[in-house]
Amino acid sequence: MNPATEPMFAKVLIANRGEIALRVARACRELGVATVAVHSVPDRDSAVVRFADESVQIGPAAPGKSYLNAAAILEAAQRTGADAVHPGYGFLSESPDFAEACEDLGIVLVGPPAGVMGRLGDKATARSLMHAAGLPLLPGGLDPLGPEEAAALAGRIGFPVIIKACAGGGGRGMQVVHDPDRFAEEFRRTQATAQMLFGDGRVYVEKYLSDARHVEVQVLCDGRGNAIHLGERDCTVQRRHQKLIEETPAPSLPPGLAEQMGASAVAGALAAGYVGAGTFEFLLAPDGEYYFMEVNCRIQVEHPVTEMVTGIDLVREQLRIAAGNPLDLEQDDVRLRGVALECRINAEDPANGFVPTPGLIEQFIPAGGPFVRVDTHVHAGYTVPPNYDSLLAKLVVWAPRRDEAIARMLRALSEFTVTGDRVRTTGDFLARVLDDDRFRGATHTTALVDELLRP
Amino acid sequence: MNPATEPMFAKVLIANRGEIALRVARACRELGVATVAVHSVPDRDSAVVRFADESVQIGPAAPGKSYLNAAAILEAAQRTGADAVHPGYGFLSESPDFAEACEDLGIVLVGPPAGVMGRLGDKATARSLMHAAGLPLLPGGLDPLGPEEAAALAGRIGFPVIIKACAGGGGRGMQVVHDPDRFAEEFRRTQATAQMLFGDGRVYVEKYLSDARHVEVQVLCDGRGNAIHLGERDCTVQRRHQKLIEETPAPSLPPGLAEQMGASAVAGALAAGYVGAGTFEFLLAPDGEYYFMEVNCRIQVEHPVTEMVTGIDLVREQLRIAAGNPLDLEQDDVRLRGVALECRINAEDPANGFVPTPGLIEQFIPAGGPFVRVDTHVHAGYTVPPNYDSLLAKLVVWAPRRDEAIARMLRALSEFTVTGDRVRTTGDFLARVLDDDRFRGATHTTALVDELLRP
Repeated sequence: MNPATEPMFAKVLIANRGEIALRVARACRELGVATVAVHSVPDRDSAVVRFADESVQIGPAAPGKSYLNAAAILEAAQRTGADAVHPGYGFLSESPDFAEACEDLGIVLVGPPAGVMGRLGDKATARSLMHAAGLPLLPGGLDPLGPEEAAALAGRIGFPVIIKACAGGGGRGMQVVHDPDRFAEEFRRTQATAQMLFGDGRVYVEKYLSDARHVEVQVLCDGRGNAIHLGERDCTVQRRHQKLIEETPAPSLPPGLAEQMGASAVAGALAAGYVGAGTFEFLLAPDGEYYFMEVNCRIQVEHPVTEMVTGIDLVREQLRIAAGNPLDLEQDDVRLRGVALECRINAEDPANGFVPTPGLIEQFIPAGGPFVRVDTHVHAGYTVPPNYDSLLAKLVVWAPRRDEAIARMLRALSEFTVTGDRVRTTGDFLARVLDDDRFRGATHTTALVDELLRP
Repeated sequence: MNPATEPMFAKVLIANRGEIALRVARACRELGVATVAVHSVPDRDSAVVRFADESVQIGPAAPGKSYLNAAAILEAAQRTGADAVHPGYGFLSESPDFAEACEDLGIVLVGPPAGVMGRLGDKATARSLMHAAGLPLLPGGLDPLGPEEAAALAGRIGFPVIIKACAGGGGRGMQVVHDPDRFAEEFRRTQATAQMLFGDGRVYVEKYLSDARHVEVQVLCDGRGNAIHLGERDCTVQRRHQKLIEETPAPSLPPGLAEQMGASAVAGALAAGYVGAGTFEFLLAPDGEYYFMEVNCRIQVEHPVTEMVTGIDLVREQLRIAAGNPLDLEQDDVRLRGVALECRINAEDPANGFVPTPGLIEQFIPAGGPFVRVDTHVHAGYTVPPNYDSLLAKLVVWAPRRDEAIARMLRALSEFTVTGDRVRTTGDFLARVLDDDRFRGATHTTALVDELLRP
């Protein structure tokens, strides 16, 4: 169908900041949709505020009073007459309460319905649902447990185990336990952390794979029974469960495995009644077995690598689906070309425990040229505020083959320039990772970064 | 073959400046080839000088004493031990004398051999060669003529006609004549201009098509009998024969025509003994007939649009071929995906006759995000020198369809920010062109820009 003649929103409010807010505003502009940027006080001169058609200040720096302030955001949406809200990632993007509040006001939230988000956001419920849909799970409990039952379960499945908050996500609220004697204490501590972070102290226990790879599958579903996957992403390079480098396709998978994981994700999405763009995260064991971990009910930081190999604009598809349009792609229309890599350039000091380094950026020269994409809200003269995550830019490259993509990323990192009195970046550290034989040979596991950091 | 194990240069000297010098340096870096940047005095802090492994100052600002100073460039190549020279576009890139001087010193020039360059660079000789190879030519002379014979020929083929310098190129040294009474005067004037610009006063006469489109075909040849084309580019949006916007594929061509033009270009390249990357330029008449114009024996400004739809890195292929490697692609391996557009952002003032506006750039925020590529040597704090062409940046976008690519380019232009006391850019003017119904409907001709500029 011609997008120019299909249903589309008139105005979308973007309930986020930084590069993803700009990403959403760009997609809206290309679709002819007006945009409202909301912003905290320190973000008042940000790129998305300048780019959007309108902007509303919603609160002070503290995220709880601005980007997590559902009431202020919904008030801004009503005042500006926005017919939809795009939540980006993080902040309110996976809050069933926020989704429900939007539904109550007749504002479309770009994402799955509140009920689906609630079921998939609760990790224990999601495990049960995916178990029923036939997805492979790691040994562990399907339900949250008390401390004694949990300790017994951990003993049965064997250490190391991982204790995870049912309401967790994005790498927070989880704890690996290697020593049975420390289990009880870590269980209590994780419960307390979960209660503090998410207001929900329920946790569950799973087998921990120390030498696994993290492979996830991107899906698109229109809520009318059409669901496709857009290939997988390997996000094995992590530090403290935070992804640093992502790539697609996942390197050196056994033949047929990517297709099998894609089919699992589509089956899971259909079983959950999923709508929109979502990601099924899996752990891949050295023996080639894979295990469902969780569903992310939102656009992901690493979505550009999928866009580079498929040619499909994921935010555009999110908006099309949320506006009520059917998917105009079938699985056979999705053709993957080449290899894409993403590096997250954070304002952090790798020489100093990755401590965030906010402050004024004096010179900012992003990489450019052939097959390079930069998603950033940063420019020379921008001050990185201390209040939010430290992502400065996503540097994405494409090449026909993986070794060429690595060479291209190393080239792009070598020209990426950020200077300032205080600011440091993770750029050089990421170059070290890319240049490591384990990464080049795709034999690395989630332990690679820790191994590189060990003195 | 694995590029890591095939023959490659150890060190390449880049005999150019601006974005194309950086483009070449990037390709070298990705191939593991060391680079030498040469630069004039005002370019001493330029991006390529900072990026390259070595740099040599070759002269003062005046191009004749720096980037056209073959002796200084060759001396730098010998002194630094470069085994090849990449000439970029413009400057010495199509000089058979320079190519020959390189050959004499045993330095590889990345481009066709001096003999081929000489034959194709002489437009009259090129016409004869291509006529023999079966390429369609516009009515006109195959040989340079004196004023009386030329006037008689012009009368026979019918006005308007175009008088072109045999040694011309890049839109310089040509004059359209509508009025038979003015022919003799314009003929003399073009001869004098040609003598001044190229040191060669020979001119020839051709039928002028006032409502034509400019369509060109990219070829790659390895000098071993393998030649392929990489699709066509439409460069119809021009001002005074200077391209402003380029796109691929050429929009609304009659079925089969692109393939036919591609086959013509390959036949012409093989007939000429072409080696490397080259471009066959054609005029496309409203009746669907196309006519050979000239061959450009170098990489072109607009090569990125071809890279975006083919996934093939043209500068990498130039270097591979020049290093003696065979083409590792056959025609069937070239698969075109989607649509790419390029805008040339020049430091010129469209409100003031496109006069160049050199000077300090205070803020420079290139566009970014999905399916956007920026090739630029410019950053905040950079001073555009008055001595060279006014190209600041090439803004390139890709999309599955042409209407989406136009929307994406308009979005990208809307975020592209260049400020400074004196500097103006062509960005807003190019947005007007893209938004014009004639461009959107692909009914435009090379006259579009003049029509838009008419009060």
